[in-house]
Amino acid sequence: MTTGATDGPAPRRRGRPSRTAKAAGPDARSRILQAARAEFAARGYDRTSVRGIARAADVDAALVHHYFGTKDEVFAAAVELSFEPALVLPEILGGPAEDLGERLARYFIGVWENPVSRGPLLAILRSALTHEAAANVLRGFVLRRLLERIAADLDVPDPTLRAELAASHMIGIAVLRYVVRAEPLASADPERIVAMVAPTLQRYLADR
Amino acid sequence: MTTGATDGPAPRRRGRPSRTAKAAGPDARSRILQAARAEFAARGYDRTSVRGIARAADVDAALVHHYFGTKDEVFAAAVELSFEPALVLPEILGGPAEDLGERLARYFIGVWENPVSRGPLLAILRSALTHEAAANVLRGFVLRRLLERIAADLDVPDPTLRAELAASHMIGIAVLRYVVRAEPLASADPERIVAMVAPTLQRYLADR
Repeated sequence: MTTGATDGPAPRRRGRPSRTAKAAGPDARSRILQAARAEFAARGYDRTSVRGIARAADVDAALVHHYFGTKDEVFAAAVELSFEPALVLPEILGGPAEDLGERLARYFIGVWENPVSRGPLLAILRSALTHEAAANVLRGFVLRRLLERIAADLDVPDPTLRAELAASHMIGIAVLRYVVRAEPLASADPERIVAMVAPTLQRYLADR
Repeated sequence: MTTGATDGPAPRRRGRPSRTAKAAGPDARSRILQAARAEFAARGYDRTSVRGIARAADVDAALVHHYFGTKDEVFAAAVELSFEPALVLPEILGGPAEDLGERLARYFIGVWENPVSRGPLLAILRSALTHEAAANVLRGFVLRRLLERIAADLDVPDPTLRAELAASHMIGIAVLRYVVRAEPLASADPERIVAMVAPTLQRYLADR
């Protein structure tokens, strides 16, 4: 481990971190992201700071700024970490057109069923509903990137509106199933939900 | 106006209010409900009290307890005030079966488009997502009453699950349109949303 004071005054400028930055290296970026997700999940958007994330990841705050920029950009990256859009979306969007709704429903439910991503996602949802800044990030970075990536592949009129309607359904299911825990939805088998919801997503995303 | 100290100690027992209760009368109940809705909207679930509601309605706290019981029950009644289920549901459920989805979508969007009910509904949604007690009320009183009232009229398998799936879609639209304000959904004409969403609700609620 390289050394460097974490509790002393850290350089506030953005850009390339100094040579004293702690633990920079190939997996520092991923460690920062994991720490950011955990911090946002535990404290919510409002009470999470870049300094706190740096401390949790055992790096200098300058390194967080170097890799991600502002707190909002770290937040966006931490949300995307759960959805892994670069990894998963090409596969989902590249499959047979007639099963697109089913693949998207299974992907979304799978992310929420995974205990590693569920906690952070709940924190993000709560933050977005109670803090304007977090709502801005969700709207500006996450939804735009995720939904416009999906919309770009659709061959329907108003693809972004349709992608939003599909997303709204999945968000609402997350609210009722995982937050409000309304029965029988909260205890329903995930595959049963996928089977019920897939035709809805398919209609929005593929039915002209 | 009848008189009575509002800031002195009020009887804590539930039941019939004493003769000194302020402003009891045919519209006291409705005034309490309006005040409750405004208080929950302005302060959120956590920081609203029966005493505060009574003060805002200019009645004794005992009268609030008399009409509604606990704070949770006032909360449930305040939520229901926006949806007016007793007034509206018979009409929606009694119409032609093939347009049920469209009537429900228009009703729900209409409640959210109405500025009088939107603020309180947003507060309720935020409270339910951040406070376990408010989520319990939403689950226990509101959803059960509203959704099971709808489910009871459906001639499909698993009517409550289907009513929840329909409700989840409308809740998700509320989140993306009114809270996150994702475009183009946030600016879309309400009737356009109704036209897009109605077939989805119809499938859940009527398609065996």
